[in-house]
Amino acid sequence: MRIAVMGAGSWGTALAQVACANGHEVRLWARRDEVARAINRDRRNPGYLRDVELGAGIEATSDLAHALDGAEALLVVTPSKVMRAMAREVAPLVRPDLPVALCFKGIEEGTGRLPAEVFAAELGSPERIAVLSGPNHAEEVAIGIPAATVIACASAHVASFLQDALGSGAFRVYASDDVPGVELCAASKNVIAIAVGASYGSGCGDNTAAMLITRGMAEMSRLVSKAGGDPLTCMGLAGAGDLIATCMSQHSRNRRFGERLVEGMTPDRFSAETGMVVEGALAARNFEVLERRYGVDLPITRVVRDLVWGDATIAGVRRQLLERSFKAEFYGL
Amino acid sequence: MRIAVMGAGSWGTALAQVACANGHEVRLWARRDEVARAINRDRRNPGYLRDVELGAGIEATSDLAHALDGAEALLVVTPSKVMRAMAREVAPLVRPDLPVALCFKGIEEGTGRLPAEVFAAELGSPERIAVLSGPNHAEEVAIGIPAATVIACASAHVASFLQDALGSGAFRVYASDDVPGVELCAASKNVIAIAVGASYGSGCGDNTAAMLITRGMAEMSRLVSKAGGDPLTCMGLAGAGDLIATCMSQHSRNRRFGERLVEGMTPDRFSAETGMVVEGALAARNFEVLERRYGVDLPITRVVRDLVWGDATIAGVRRQLLERSFKAEFYGL
Repeated sequence: MRIAVMGAGSWGTALAQVACANGHEVRLWARRDEVARAINRDRRNPGYLRDVELGAGIEATSDLAHALDGAEALLVVTPSKVMRAMAREVAPLVRPDLPVALCFKGIEEGTGRLPAEVFAAELGSPERIAVLSGPNHAEEVAIGIPAATVIACASAHVASFLQDALGSGAFRVYASDDVPGVELCAASKNVIAIAVGASYGSGCGDNTAAMLITRGMAEMSRLVSKAGGDPLTCMGLAGAGDLIATCMSQHSRNRRFGERLVEGMTPDRFSAETGMVVEGALAARNFEVLERRYGVDLPITRVVRDLVWGDATIAGVRRQLLERSFKAEFYGL
Repeated sequence: MRIAVMGAGSWGTALAQVACANGHEVRLWARRDEVARAINRDRRNPGYLRDVELGAGIEATSDLAHALDGAEALLVVTPSKVMRAMAREVAPLVRPDLPVALCFKGIEEGTGRLPAEVFAAELGSPERIAVLSGPNHAEEVAIGIPAATVIACASAHVASFLQDALGSGAFRVYASDDVPGVELCAASKNVIAIAVGASYGSGCGDNTAAMLITRGMAEMSRLVSKAGGDPLTCMGLAGAGDLIATCMSQHSRNRRFGERLVEGMTPDRFSAETGMVVEGALAARNFEVLERRYGVDLPITRVVRDLVWGDATIAGVRRQLLERSFKAEFYGL
């Protein structure tokens, strides 16, 4: 079948390669025409995964209508900050029952809306909108190193359709019906990665990192539960799995940013130095709307926000976290 | 109050230090008298954590009755393979309401019994028997680097008593009532660490490791659920937390053993070379009784068992795992 992939960054490119390896005809949409031309000419993405030769079944294009023409599934892999704009661009071009898998992570700034809510609002037919998330470094997935991911969708039929379309021996796809759970886990993992980085940066050890990751999952499970999701989702590939892959990797930009918080690093300065956005810093801020909406206490997310955007100090937030009263392991569910 | 700690290995020594730092009088039992004498003379354990100066409130002894005399809590930190023998040694010396926290990990060989079952059978009064587990490298805990752990007990009163006795700013203790859940997680983490090691050893990446850890938690949650525990426990400090700390550390002996499985390493040869027991190899074998008793499928545990004790090959088990049919993320709960 034909699959449209919107977004030719590293993850979009890797997913195009996955779909192509499964025998599908892939139309990979790149915003910039010179990127699309280079891919078609060189069988390589000039900006990402440059070592990977792209399959012959991938056609790149900067024409969105062409990318979507005849597609039987759409994977959206554009940056989260343009989610509303992308949904509006796509809306007039897709039929109401086209399966759409959102493969980016984040929360809409200001509204606190999750990606599937934004796309449902713009495209209608929420039941065909799925989200895909998991411990998936693009560099590894693109060359077939075994990985697993989860696809969540309100429609079991659509989830199973996408599971078959994308799954293979090397890319194992598990199904879920917990859309908000997967989205909240996906959005939070970079926040926790900053906390883990700050912890290592201030001289703490592997025990402390494991504590922050585990208590990070516990706080996220309280939010997921209040938002109508299943706390167990946080134990899955989109929660624990993605957190582990991110926090184990010393290359994670969010963890690295956290390590440098101790020397007063700011998101703007980090972006200027590295050319990369610190998604966890934005997410920590965007979670505030959800904390208020659901009345949930997210102590680790809060201290990351206070460290990055407020005037909190490492010593102060350390004291704040460690002096909390002793509790049952899973309270507030 | 007075607290007795049985077992002067690295974790027993670290827990003695934790209790001492909380102002308790600690009697630390060592099987060998020369170890007890050396600790009392040098304020250091000659065999473990040699860089740590032990608190003045710790008295070491090789006399079990003296260690237990007047104790208001007992921490058992002896190796899992002697759990039954230790329970029998302790039984005549303790009062029926003495809070007992089991701080070792494992399953009784042959019977498949969990530590709290074994101690309850020998000591009676199961409601006062707690288990303690979490991401706790002894080296870090002993010097006050922040860590968290979970204490599970059928009696909320005993759990809360132990939480207060051992908890501090640097050693955060969470309470749970899920004794079998915590014990099964604790016993399984070294099995999964072997799988992660084997995966890295055969050239797989961080995605694959995160997949094995996450699917390892999923299979353990199926067993926990059948054994009367709460699947969420696997997302907690004794499950995900301990797995993360173990698998993130390149020093984990179980992970290192797994890495060397690809070159045909055996548990005996590894022990001869390193002087350390590969607990995960034994646990993989001991889980077989539980798989049969509860009729639960533990695919990762099974391939570790087949690799270590059978004649399976890495290529064979890789195929076996990756060719499993696609499923819902949390089935069998």
